[in-house]
Amino acid sequence: MDVSAGREQAEALDAADPVAAFRDRFVVDDDSDLVYLDGNSLGRLPKAVAGRLDQVVRDEWGHGLIRSWDDWIDAPAQAGEVLGRHLLGARPDEVLVCDSVTVNLYKLAAAAARARPERRVIVTDDDNFPTDRYVLAGLAEERGLELRLIHADIDAGLDLGTLAAAVDDDTALVCLSQVAYRSGALLDMAEVTRIVHDAGALVIWDLCHSVGAVPIELDAVDTDLAVGCTYKYLNAGPGAPAFCYVRRDFADSLRQPIWGWFGGHEQFEMGPTYRPADGMARFLTGTPPIAGIRAVQTSAELLAEAGIGALRAKGVAMTEYLVALADAWLEPLGFRLASPRDPAQRGSHVTLHHPEAWRICQALIQRAKVIPDYRTPDRLRLGPAPIYTRYVDVWDGLDRLRRVVEDRVYEEYSAEPTRVT
Amino acid sequence: MDVSAGREQAEALDAADPVAAFRDRFVVDDDSDLVYLDGNSLGRLPKAVAGRLDQVVRDEWGHGLIRSWDDWIDAPAQAGEVLGRHLLGARPDEVLVCDSVTVNLYKLAAAAARARPERRVIVTDDDNFPTDRYVLAGLAEERGLELRLIHADIDAGLDLGTLAAAVDDDTALVCLSQVAYRSGALLDMAEVTRIVHDAGALVIWDLCHSVGAVPIELDAVDTDLAVGCTYKYLNAGPGAPAFCYVRRDFADSLRQPIWGWFGGHEQFEMGPTYRPADGMARFLTGTPPIAGIRAVQTSAELLAEAGIGALRAKGVAMTEYLVALADAWLEPLGFRLASPRDPAQRGSHVTLHHPEAWRICQALIQRAKVIPDYRTPDRLRLGPAPIYTRYVDVWDGLDRLRRVVEDRVYEEYSAEPTRVT
Repeated sequence: MDVSAGREQAEALDAADPVAAFRDRFVVDDDSDLVYLDGNSLGRLPKAVAGRLDQVVRDEWGHGLIRSWDDWIDAPAQAGEVLGRHLLGARPDEVLVCDSVTVNLYKLAAAAARARPERRVIVTDDDNFPTDRYVLAGLAEERGLELRLIHADIDAGLDLGTLAAAVDDDTALVCLSQVAYRSGALLDMAEVTRIVHDAGALVIWDLCHSVGAVPIELDAVDTDLAVGCTYKYLNAGPGAPAFCYVRRDFADSLRQPIWGWFGGHEQFEMGPTYRPADGMARFLTGTPPIAGIRAVQTSAELLAEAGIGALRAKGVAMTEYLVALADAWLEPLGFRLASPRDPAQRGSHVTLHHPEAWRICQALIQRAKVIPDYRTPDRLRLGPAPIYTRYVDVWDGLDRLRRVVEDRVYEEYSAEPTRVT
Repeated sequence: MDVSAGREQAEALDAADPVAAFRDRFVVDDDSDLVYLDGNSLGRLPKAVAGRLDQVVRDEWGHGLIRSWDDWIDAPAQAGEVLGRHLLGARPDEVLVCDSVTVNLYKLAAAAARARPERRVIVTDDDNFPTDRYVLAGLAEERGLELRLIHADIDAGLDLGTLAAAVDDDTALVCLSQVAYRSGALLDMAEVTRIVHDAGALVIWDLCHSVGAVPIELDAVDTDLAVGCTYKYLNAGPGAPAFCYVRRDFADSLRQPIWGWFGGHEQFEMGPTYRPADGMARFLTGTPPIAGIRAVQTSAELLAEAGIGALRAKGVAMTEYLVALADAWLEPLGFRLASPRDPAQRGSHVTLHHPEAWRICQALIQRAKVIPDYRTPDRLRLGPAPIYTRYVDVWDGLDRLRRVVEDRVYEEYSAEPTRVT
């Protein structure tokens, strides 16, 4: 892609963007001149979510009080149904919105391990997101299982030959991220599922970095289990409740370890013995966080209105544009693309390697009003969320980035990374 | 207590109530004529919580975006510190606000069982709240332990002689509710802790029905572990995040089973191996729900401003008044007190037994604008939360209740209980 036409090219791309109007559906300080490229970490606030939260808090809770539980009781499944239909390729009754990704992964992984009691190995890759690796390690330690960490390239992602060689008839469970959190590398869900199923094992997908950014067809590829977060491309707010998916014909055979009252049969009989609810509902635990769940549903409806196909098309076009700008401007400054070059092989974020990535990240935020994020050890991650990011944001962001590096502004910042979420 | 003076007596009690002004700090539809006696199930909305949620959503998320994580990262511990200091008698670093009661109980119970590996028995009572019994049953099944259910009277609560006889040198863990969810019976925390510790076991308190209603001094009685919810007397909203407490000198020796990235040492190094954070922070799991946690902190600050001593004094006086009205008006109509008669032996709710409790509850809500709640099998539960309930609400509520029964209005309603939260 030739980017020599300058900012006008970005303006033209915005003028032709079929989902451009959705930016107005978000709270954006246009006068602040901020370029936000961290929607892959925390999505912007949709105006409809702010309104829905007001309604839940002031009307349903403030005025409806306990009576609102008649509606709230179905909130985890209602939000799950919307997410499933529009963004996950899942049928009703296959998705719940509840708990965090970490807790949901623990529940699903424990249930999956229990469903393959004669098998002793859990497989994941060494570049999977920390909470996935840690939860699986804890489960393996607790149950006397082996956690097998296979190597994934931190730029190119997991090679499926490596996966195929690692799963065997002792493998209970494989857990992988559809989109790698650092590189953005995108796995072929159908092919991975086939490899895992051929070995008689079960697969759990972590969809945190893919949901809302790439089309997902869980049912169509006949996969098993999935979890994902809702505060990145789903824009449901910091720490909003996560989701979990269990293939419908599979749910009744699974037992998860956290036997809470919301996951029991005939909850309000409060009987002496726990019996799991039929189907997916057994994956509920405690009282669900109603406001957060309603936010997830509203956010999912907004993405559905834009259409995941249109969002993915823009995500591909915008990251292609970003990569072309990076090639033209940043490669000469010592940057290297640390994501797959083929857009079909990556999600909606692009990662750049630079030895001074941490200091550059700080300078960008504090001096150039550009917000990317940093990932260890030396990565700058740029996530232009298709639903509200403009091509001019990408142009401005990369233009400011090159100036920060050319002018060596970053040298004023400490080389010692501190915490970054 | 002589209640023959009628409603004027209630008005006089309100006029002399030192915390009466706090009612104005809540969203209350005064014109709706509603008598809300279900604060023990879902507390009313504090105006300050509505404002704080607006601030978190619109300012911190909407405008601050990812930068707000610099403050949010400490939210679970900050809210825990406020809760601990004002309402739990706990030092800083002993309380976290995170997850649900169910998930927190699972984490703490699993950690406690692991800390007593040579012991095989978990003890709770057969009238404990369902999620407690179920979580412990699940844990026992998973770990090959025995769950020993000791009998508690559903009106009078657990007899400590029964407890003492049931714990022995094979007991790993005892889990009890400080205030029983049905009867409101209040346990002596110091005495229970002594009995359990004498047997060399650990104790986990469920504080759901006591926190915010009775003074709690966890450190002073040298107890071990506790969990509790925040949507009852704490007024933090439906499904707001729960809290957990671990005695400070004890935290570093415990390992909980859900190894999430927020509970690890040096979280943002995202290193290859999970190592639990120092102290209480190891009980965090996934990304914490920020808005809900901020709501908990704001709610706790409001209760602290009123003072738990003043709230408890009003709780005692108001339930005494309620019992006196019930004795005078309801006992002749077939009701029987199903809570301890001594106010020192109960929390802030009072339960009445009546064979038609379910139908009476429905008639009260739908025809008399009084909201109590129903509990199986034949209990009407009345929870006049001290911070916003007036004595006239108690008078009006019980006056309407006697009329509903005298006039047999309840006979229009189905005898078949459906779900009640």
